[in-house]
Amino acid sequence: MMQTPDSQRMEKIVSLCKRRGFIFQSSEIYGGLNGLWDYGPLGVELKRNLKNYWWRVMVHERDDVVGMDGSILMNRAVWKASGHEETFSDPMVDCRSCKARLRADQLVEKKGAKQCPVCGGKDLTEPRAFNLMLKTYVGATEDESSVTYLRPETAQAIFVQFKNVLEVSRKKLPFGIAQIGKAFRNEINPRNFTFRSREFEQMELEYFCRAEEGMKWLDYWREERLKFYEDIGLARERLHVHEIPDEERAFYSKGTYDIEYDFPFGRQELEGVAYRTDYDLQQHIKASGKALDYFDDETKERFVPHVVEPSAGVDRTVLALICDAYTEDEAPDEKGKMETRTVLRFHPRMAPIKCAVFPLLKNKEPLVSKAKEIVDLLRPHLNVFYDEGGAIGRRYRRQDEIGTPFGVTVDFETLGEKGAELRDTVTLRERDSMKQERVKISELAGILLAKIR
Amino acid sequence: MMQTPDSQRMEKIVSLCKRRGFIFQSSEIYGGLNGLWDYGPLGVELKRNLKNYWWRVMVHERDDVVGMDGSILMNRAVWKASGHEETFSDPMVDCRSCKARLRADQLVEKKGAKQCPVCGGKDLTEPRAFNLMLKTYVGATEDESSVTYLRPETAQAIFVQFKNVLEVSRKKLPFGIAQIGKAFRNEINPRNFTFRSREFEQMELEYFCRAEEGMKWLDYWREERLKFYEDIGLARERLHVHEIPDEERAFYSKGTYDIEYDFPFGRQELEGVAYRTDYDLQQHIKASGKALDYFDDETKERFVPHVVEPSAGVDRTVLALICDAYTEDEAPDEKGKMETRTVLRFHPRMAPIKCAVFPLLKNKEPLVSKAKEIVDLLRPHLNVFYDEGGAIGRRYRRQDEIGTPFGVTVDFETLGEKGAELRDTVTLRERDSMKQERVKISELAGILLAKIR
Repeated sequence: MMQTPDSQRMEKIVSLCKRRGFIFQSSEIYGGLNGLWDYGPLGVELKRNLKNYWWRVMVHERDDVVGMDGSILMNRAVWKASGHEETFSDPMVDCRSCKARLRADQLVEKKGAKQCPVCGGKDLTEPRAFNLMLKTYVGATEDESSVTYLRPETAQAIFVQFKNVLEVSRKKLPFGIAQIGKAFRNEINPRNFTFRSREFEQMELEYFCRAEEGMKWLDYWREERLKFYEDIGLARERLHVHEIPDEERAFYSKGTYDIEYDFPFGRQELEGVAYRTDYDLQQHIKASGKALDYFDDETKERFVPHVVEPSAGVDRTVLALICDAYTEDEAPDEKGKMETRTVLRFHPRMAPIKCAVFPLLKNKEPLVSKAKEIVDLLRPHLNVFYDEGGAIGRRYRRQDEIGTPFGVTVDFETLGEKGAELRDTVTLRERDSMKQERVKISELAGILLAKIR
Repeated sequence: MMQTPDSQRMEKIVSLCKRRGFIFQSSEIYGGLNGLWDYGPLGVELKRNLKNYWWRVMVHERDDVVGMDGSILMNRAVWKASGHEETFSDPMVDCRSCKARLRADQLVEKKGAKQCPVCGGKDLTEPRAFNLMLKTYVGATEDESSVTYLRPETAQAIFVQFKNVLEVSRKKLPFGIAQIGKAFRNEINPRNFTFRSREFEQMELEYFCRAEEGMKWLDYWREERLKFYEDIGLARERLHVHEIPDEERAFYSKGTYDIEYDFPFGRQELEGVAYRTDYDLQQHIKASGKALDYFDDETKERFVPHVVEPSAGVDRTVLALICDAYTEDEAPDEKGKMETRTVLRFHPRMAPIKCAVFPLLKNKEPLVSKAKEIVDLLRPHLNVFYDEGGAIGRRYRRQDEIGTPFGVTVDFETLGEKGAELRDTVTLRERDSMKQERVKISELAGILLAKIR
């Protein structure tokens, strides 16, 4: 395949992810399993930072949202009622020549005829529906009566618990229920690294409101969510809001926006903000016979609320964070010669490691023990990393490559060997500008916390 | 069934969990699904606090541990190599009379003969192995070639990524890899509320060391982990360390301790601390042909490390926290008459809501706006809850029942109406002692943070 600058860039990102421990192929020693990924030591921290920040701004900092955490396996009746059992499918085609299984929209067209993209054959089956839900059996028997599915989205857990959560939280409309959790889709063709995978995590809010306010809240959440992506450090010019036209929206939706990001492999959806009306609750009312409605104390009305859903992909956003942060620039090496530097310019809020601490030299005990003191001082407040190995310039580069925003170096000045006024100060280096300033150890935690939060 | 004090206590706990939004039955509106549970608004916060504290002490506060986050679905080869496909099963028996499916150890014995506990019948099949892994199919076909399982434990993801994590983290022995994630077991008989469920979350550390230090690290982790349960507030006298005797241990283990807790339904395991030797790595070396070994820079030796595994159940520990916290005592009502008070005496570190803020009266605007100012002041630091509804005593009781350790009341003194020296002070009430003290608003965040961390 031809190498474009974008595909080269993506290759470098994938390679960095593996080399530095952001993302590994799942079950790699057994050849992997297509569309499944593991997060390594740095990836898990980046993902935690993203999820915790989402929870903070979407739940803790708001009066009108509460959280929940539903199980991945639910009663099959949920998926019958939601429509997933019947319609959550992609059209699939078999090539009779080479036996390849293909998504119908991946066939190539030559001279007006559909062809297999693998062998070029034209002997193709008619498209048939392939359900994307992963099936399993719960209970002692393995038959139709025990079938259920790994949830293909987290949203339904919120809808079926709407009444319970409403009752215990005593919330008034408008209010939301937030959830972070895994979902599974048996993608025929997982691709684009972790972007389209078979197991993924969602951060979803279902925001319940009166029907007459639905469009207003759709606009509100589109703006809030766009701001979120800026606040985690994605460049505004690579973010786009795409309004889904009437004919492409789910039939029950009165309006949907996708928030998209310019990945090296193209513009792709990070989040959908959908006005789902009262469709889901009505489906579950019909199927369960339960009254999933809302009683308004003041107007004495009883009605089924409408819902606006901002639904974000954790893994996609992690990948966008890495792609957006990936930069190559020029910096001097140990001898002053310019060399290419790889930097992940993460927002300090998202960076897996917030601060690295270095003794200038490994074999000077007072430098080492002072550096370790600083680690102990910072550790209760932020994720720190201690490194004593190699030339200081190389240690900086290693941290630049994983996006650590700050580096603290303990040198002879710190020990007071260059005069009393520099005693108990360290150099604080900023990753992007590579600028260094001298700060007092006693002020370090405060300075860093202010920049990280 | 006879009601014992313990079973009554458990009933009250289960009822409180539902009523106040800690735990709901999954898919409840469709009759639920046996052994599956959802966490409500308070349950999800409690669970988050537990998991975050575990991550903090097991990963962030240590130099010798890094984290990872593996996928739930892995290549089937993992479960062949680990032995789960062949041997992870319970013996099961069918009753030919009433068709009940039973675990062999649940049969009742009368006059020396096994009987069905449901119908009393004696026409039982021979016990046969029932594999506890939940099966699914990944990919476009649904046959033997696409089978895999929902992981029955998180540990194997760590073993198969051992080499990758070792390489990227550049750690020296001893060091550990930590992970929090969901696992699934098709229990024939889920029971004891959330204790034995089909979907659950684990917090696991695999701590790699030299063979000759295995027993030492086993002892170390047993003590560390016991301390953890004390640090999250479980009463020491209800915690027990049980040494698993030789004949009950897995054949490859050189020593295993269970950390147990006295639940109302009996003494049960919260965590297993197992010295697994090099069994798992050796199994994967054999099956994959990959060199999952360690090279010692100093001694120039190459060997397969041994491992000690502290493996904790998130849901079990959440349930223990609730059971341990549940207390009934006596407190005066609005008119000074003593009444029974239900309190969840959570450690402030674990409590879902850290502080409730009340205006003394709902219809005095200056009280309300001052209280809301305090909410905004505290919110960046801790999870707060604002409540203006009902008599102040009733508002306290509602918070006691969900374990909120602190309550702040804004009264006329706060507004300066009772003298200048009380202006901008509030009453701070402590949940367990019900003692109230006056503190300055400006000092509130600092005081609370010191007690919560």
